[in-house]
Formats: sequence, C-alpha cells, structure tokens
Amino acid sequence: MKIVTFRDGGRVGYGVVEDREIVDISILPHAPLHVRALLDAHGDALEPALRALTAAATTRLRLDAVRLLAPIPNPRKFLSLGGNYASHLAETAKIGMVRSPTQVWFNKQTSCINGPYLPIEKPVLSDQLDYEGEMGVVIGRRCRGVKAADAMAVVAGYLVCNDVSVRDWQLRAPTHMLGKSFDSHGPMGPWLTTKDEIPDPHALRLTTHVNGELRQSGSTGDMIARIGDMIEELTSAFTLEPGDILSTGTPAGVGGLMDPPCYLKPGDVVRVEIERLGHIENRVEPQPEPIRPTVPVYP
Amino acid sequence: MKIVTFRDGGRVGYGVVEDREIVDISILPHAPLHVRALLDAHGDALEPALRALTAAATTRLRLDAVRLLAPIPNPRKFLSLGGNYASHLAETAKIGMVRSPTQVWFNKQTSCINGPYLPIEKPVLSDQLDYEGEMGVVIGRRCRGVKAADAMAVVAGYLVCNDVSVRDWQLRAPTHMLGKSFDSHGPMGPWLTTKDEIPDPHALRLTTHVNGELRQSGSTGDMIARIGDMIEELTSAFTLEPGDILSTGTPAGVGGLMDPPCYLKPGDVVRVEIERLGHIENRVEPQPEPIRPTVPVYP
Repeated sequence: MKIVTFRDGGRVGYGVVEDREIVDISILPHAPLHVRALLDAHGDALEPALRALTAAATTRLRLDAVRLLAPIPNPRKFLSLGGNYASHLAETAKIGMVRSPTQVWFNKQTSCINGPYLPIEKPVLSDQLDYEGEMGVVIGRRCRGVKAADAMAVVAGYLVCNDVSVRDWQLRAPTHMLGKSFDSHGPMGPWLTTKDEIPDPHALRLTTHVNGELRQSGSTGDMIARIGDMIEELTSAFTLEPGDILSTGTPAGVGGLMDPPCYLKPGDVVRVEIERLGHIENRVEPQPEPIRPTVPVYP
Repeated sequence: MKIVTFRDGGRVGYGVVEDREIVDISILPHAPLHVRALLDAHGDALEPALRALTAAATTRLRLDAVRLLAPIPNPRKFLSLGGNYASHLAETAKIGMVRSPTQVWFNKQTSCINGPYLPIEKPVLSDQLDYEGEMGVVIGRRCRGVKAADAMAVVAGYLVCNDVSVRDWQLRAPTHMLGKSFDSHGPMGPWLTTKDEIPDPHALRLTTHVNGELRQSGSTGDMIARIGDMIEELTSAFTLEPGDILSTGTPAGVGGLMDPPCYLKPGDVVRVEIERLGHIENRVEPQPEPIRPTVPVYP
C-alpha cells in the first residue's frame, strides 16, 4: 500500500492511495493524529491495520486535487548515510574523500523535511546547491540491538529522497551537518510504499534528472551497506523509533563533482525516481528574504 | 524560574520549582501537553506566562517526592558543539585533533535524552565510556537568520548537560554521531532555568566530579564560540524550534584523555554542576541484556 500525507485547503490529512484517489483514513473516529502516530500504534502489523482502516473509510479525494506533503512530516530522526555507492565513492576520490571501513552516518535536521513536489530553496549564502537521489527506509517498530538478518521485521517501507546538499557548508565541518540541513532540503515521497509491495529493496533502479537531463543512474543493488547492515549498526548504539527515516546513500553523478561543477540554480527542476516507489520533483527557487523560519506541518 | 518535568507514580507532569516544591501547572485546564508545547505556545514571553500559570495552579508536590525527568524529554533537535573550550582543544591535540576555524556541530539523537539523576548505561560493546560536562541552551522561539547580537531574544533558558560519549564509537566516523547517541547518554536538568535568572550565561563556573574527584573545572566564559555566535551559525542554515537544545562544549578533563585513560565503569557516579543552574548526577550501570529499546516519556 501507498501512504500519503496531504494538505487539502487548510486541513492536513493522510490516507492510502488507490488508483488515482486517496482513501482518507485520517478522518475516521479515533484515527491516529498523523502517519508517525499510525506507525507508533500499528507498526508491528501495518498492512492488516491499513486494510481495516481503509475498509472503514468512506471519504475519497482525487490525488491531483490535493497538495502532497512528506509522508511523515515529523519524524524523530532523519539520518543519512555517506559514501554507500562505489560509483559515488569513485567520484569523491577526486576531492580526496576516502572509503571508510565503517558506515558514515550524519543527521539531516527534521526541520528540513519537504514535500515531494514543493520547491527547494537556493540559499542566499551559497552557490553550491546540489542534489543526491537516494532511497529512504522508514522504520516501523521501536527497536534496538537488531541483527542484520532480523532487520526487515522493523522496516515499514520505502520512499524516494533527495539529500539536497550545500557543498561549501557541508565541508565547513567533518560532521557535515549544517550543509545537509538547510530548510526545505529534505524533499521526500511521493508516498510511503509498504514493504510488502517491494520483494527486493536491493534491486530498484534509481535515476536523477535535472531539467530532463539524466545525471544519476544506479541500482539500490549497488549499495555497499545493505539495509540490514544499516539497522544493525545504528541499533547497536541507539533505539530506532517508528517513523524514523534512513536515507541510504547516493550513486555517482552529483553536480558538484562534474567537470566543471554544475550546481543547481533557481528555475532548475530536479526529479528523483526509484522503480516501484515513484518519483519526486522539486523546482529550485531563490530563498525568500528576509529569511524566515519554516512552519511545521504538525506542531 | 525553574521548570521541571517529573514522573509522579504513573503520571508525567511539569511545573515550576518554588522553595523545595513543584507548582504543578500541567494539570491546569488547557495546560500545554508538555514543556516543549509550553514553549511552542509561550516561548515569546515565557516568564509572564509562567507567572500567570503558577498563580492559577493549586497543586504542589514535594520536589523530593517525585522522579525528575529531563525538563524537555522530547525536543525536535539536540545538537552539540565540539572543541569549544581552549583547554579541551589543548588536550585533544594529543590525539591529533586540530582546532577548526568554524563551529563543529554534531547531533545527539533525541532518543538518548535522560533524566538528571537516572542511570547511564555502560555499553556492552565498548569500554570507552566517558563524560563531558556542558551547559545546555534551550531555544524558546522558532527562528531563522538570527544575528548574534539579537540571539538572546530566542533563548528560553539554560540547563546542565552531560554529553556522554563512547569514544571508540565516536571515532568510527568523522561525523561523531553514533558514539554520542547511545541510549541514556544525554542526561540533563535538573531544571530549565529561565534566562531572566542568569544575567550573564558566559560567567558560570562548571565542574565535573567522578566519585567525588574533581575532573573538569572551567567557566562558561572560556567558551570560544558564544551563544550568539552559535545561534547565528545554526540559523544561517536552518530553523531552530522551541525546545531545541544546544549543548555548548566541554572544558578540559575528560577521562579518555587522562594519562592513562580513565573511562567510566559500572558503579561510578558522575556529577556535573554549573553555578546557578544546579547539578545532575548519574550512576553508571551495566547495559541490560538482552538490549531493549528505550521507552519515550511522551509518545
């Protein structure tokens, strides 16, 4: 099933996509407040819960009549893995980056999360705006100490991410955090595809286009650390929680490592597509001035 | 004023400390759900709001009759600054760390947040458990693009933090994230002291004792980046939100850089104290096996 969060006029809701419609389960009596709360309540057995909720729902909305938001606009964690495709590692070697023997995780602040078709901001402070098409894994179950072989039990599903990066701010510190977390730089969606629909998440074609030009082309089968490895590594240290998002790394082809570098500028359109998960497409817009804080989807 | 979050039997509440009692404002009709929501609602004018709420409250609890939790158990961000005291930079030079010309921020996952007097876990996977006494700054107002000179307007107050670190896991990756985020490794409190009580947050004595032995002794006046610098740097990139916690770096004296290194072991008691902000004190306990996920204070 495909779970979406949407804005319909002044109201934010969520539901399940069937054909070109959304079955709105968020207005059922006692429905969880949002998709993260849905996962808190039903992450252990998501598909049966969704089937029951969908059967009880009577409201349908046309998918193209609402504005899609990130499927989980308010996760507790949004983590991203660096250097997880050999092809991207090869291109970063040009700027002196070396392959780490361990997984290199960093945070994107949750305040950067953005909808699948909403604009991304070109910062006033930098001209080095870049894209990274990635598959996102959504955690369904509170967990710690999970072995790789058991990890699929804690996965709720998958979505498409763009790990938008501001290269000079990324390289201000080895922790990468500032340049990965500018407001609007975490577009994702278009929906959370539950894992039952994806027999092998390590065999999905991933492409990124800028203004229609193919920039990245890879397969999630090329990932060095597999989803199980990631969950084992992270849960060795800490608890993963329902709704947490793990962005799993990007293949070769980022703009900053083209020769000459080719950064994003206002008016550009970036489209990331993953087989069976759909696509997201975001136009670059100038950052409004004066700079204003983002407004969260949920308080 | 001093804001606490507490567990009283099965109930979690929050209130204001007066003498040795808590004025429980969380059970007032229409009270915000938790302290983060209180800041969402009243962060612009926190002290007057607290005075009004406190005047309306009729329930008092003895401070020593409840269990204190982190004042904000569920922030959206928990960020920490590396290398912000010259004395700590000098000791890290021994292991080849160099002073960065920019602020080096990393995330502690919010799932590691812990109460001021609750145990911290010695991981099964590492013997390199260490402490870092730090002052935490709590954000009161949603903000972006804040200049250093204007930054105090977005601060709600201060608290005591221990940036508990697992050194080998910290050094697994330059992003530091895993080794800073083990469950239970973010003890803080004992209360959020509102900024009106602290005329100069850059002139507070900070000490860390392990089993009564003085290990760290410094002043927040020794910080290289000041609170205004931090907020300017972070909000250049992204929105800071009410309840976000910035841990501002640690002075010299961490156990891992003693000669020979002296890591924490089960039974040790770590006490971090900051002038006017109080102290936190956490006993080290073995990590329970099998490893289990943390349970959040608020869902």
